[in-house]
Amino acid sequence: MEIKVVKDILGANEQIARKNRQLFDSNRVFVVNVMASPGAGKTSVIMETIKRLKGKTRVGVVEGDISSSLDAEAISKEEVPVVQINTGGECHLDANMTATALGDLPLKDIDLLLIENVGNLVCPAEFSLGEDLRILISSTPEGDDKPFKYPLMFHEADVVLINKIDLLPYLKFDVDAFSKTIKGINRKVEIFPVSCTTGQGIDEWVDWILGRMGQK
Amino acid sequence: MEIKVVKDILGANEQIARKNRQLFDSNRVFVVNVMASPGAGKTSVIMETIKRLKGKTRVGVVEGDISSSLDAEAISKEEVPVVQINTGGECHLDANMTATALGDLPLKDIDLLLIENVGNLVCPAEFSLGEDLRILISSTPEGDDKPFKYPLMFHEADVVLINKIDLLPYLKFDVDAFSKTIKGINRKVEIFPVSCTTGQGIDEWVDWILGRMGQK
Repeated sequence: MEIKVVKDILGANEQIARKNRQLFDSNRVFVVNVMASPGAGKTSVIMETIKRLKGKTRVGVVEGDISSSLDAEAISKEEVPVVQINTGGECHLDANMTATALGDLPLKDIDLLLIENVGNLVCPAEFSLGEDLRILISSTPEGDDKPFKYPLMFHEADVVLINKIDLLPYLKFDVDAFSKTIKGINRKVEIFPVSCTTGQGIDEWVDWILGRMGQK
Repeated sequence: MEIKVVKDILGANEQIARKNRQLFDSNRVFVVNVMASPGAGKTSVIMETIKRLKGKTRVGVVEGDISSSLDAEAISKEEVPVVQINTGGECHLDANMTATALGDLPLKDIDLLLIENVGNLVCPAEFSLGEDLRILISSTPEGDDKPFKYPLMFHEADVVLINKIDLLPYLKFDVDAFSKTIKGINRKVEIFPVSCTTGQGIDEWVDWILGRMGQK
């Protein structure tokens, strides 16, 4: 019975995600679902990405949080359209919450929509929002064993950003071993080591995403 | 309908949690549910706690992971009884999974049972396992805004361990402001700043838990 309920929920989510995707496509919006543990740096990566894309492409943001609108307030300073979703306890965004937020966004004036999911390495991986690309931000202080422990999230990601590489001198974290583990789970994944504090690697990531947008 | 399903699940969980608690009480086992984000240091805190309690009290461990048994293998080197629960995708432990694991533990020979939950700042807060105490490990690289964003977890915790304080010189993290925010959400919470790398603060935490065990 429980399995049936879960299947129904995921099936219904998939239907709404398809509608979202049609809406994105008809407005020529490239959509990225940004996932990570709490505190891995989702908002920082989004902020750095927006800064580097100014004058190159028009960005919009959806901020998913259980409660609070701290991140949306920070991002609105970059003068891009931003909509806050408060899930009210739910541990992930779903397609329906996303659909509700889209009505408040000027989709015709957006080329790239960054959707910041709730901080969680488990549940968001199961719910499509209708996105073109799933990025996972995994930060060095979390440790290099995370792909073994949260395999679905690493399997579902199109891109992994290894964030906070400025902290590497103070941590036991093997970037090569970590990258190899991820590639073992997910052969096609792209990996970018980055630091939002020093800016290292951010240009490479931004160039890559612009390239991907051009292919749509 | 969905709400009813969720209520049923939580009600059924509470019933099994009560049975777990009776079993713990009849065996005079003090039980701690250890919760945190992925990579905040749950396993490291458990390892350091076990090392300092050697010869003082008899410890047992339940390791909750979606998949893998890396942490259970690490902990078994400390020569304490340890049982692995693989949730097979579920984002939290529940009372029933815990009950299943208890059959494999020598409860009569254990004074303190540490249950490491799945790394997740959202879902585990809703599911009692029958524990005496809930501890939340919040690590400095995650940032000092986390209580605003995951308020239920901070509200439900009896103790917050602020872990990785050895990294403070390299981060923007205000321990006083963070502690004040937590106390604003949860007036009775105990807070211990610790580092599993340098050992700072661990003795204070271990002395405190021994004191709490003595009160049961």
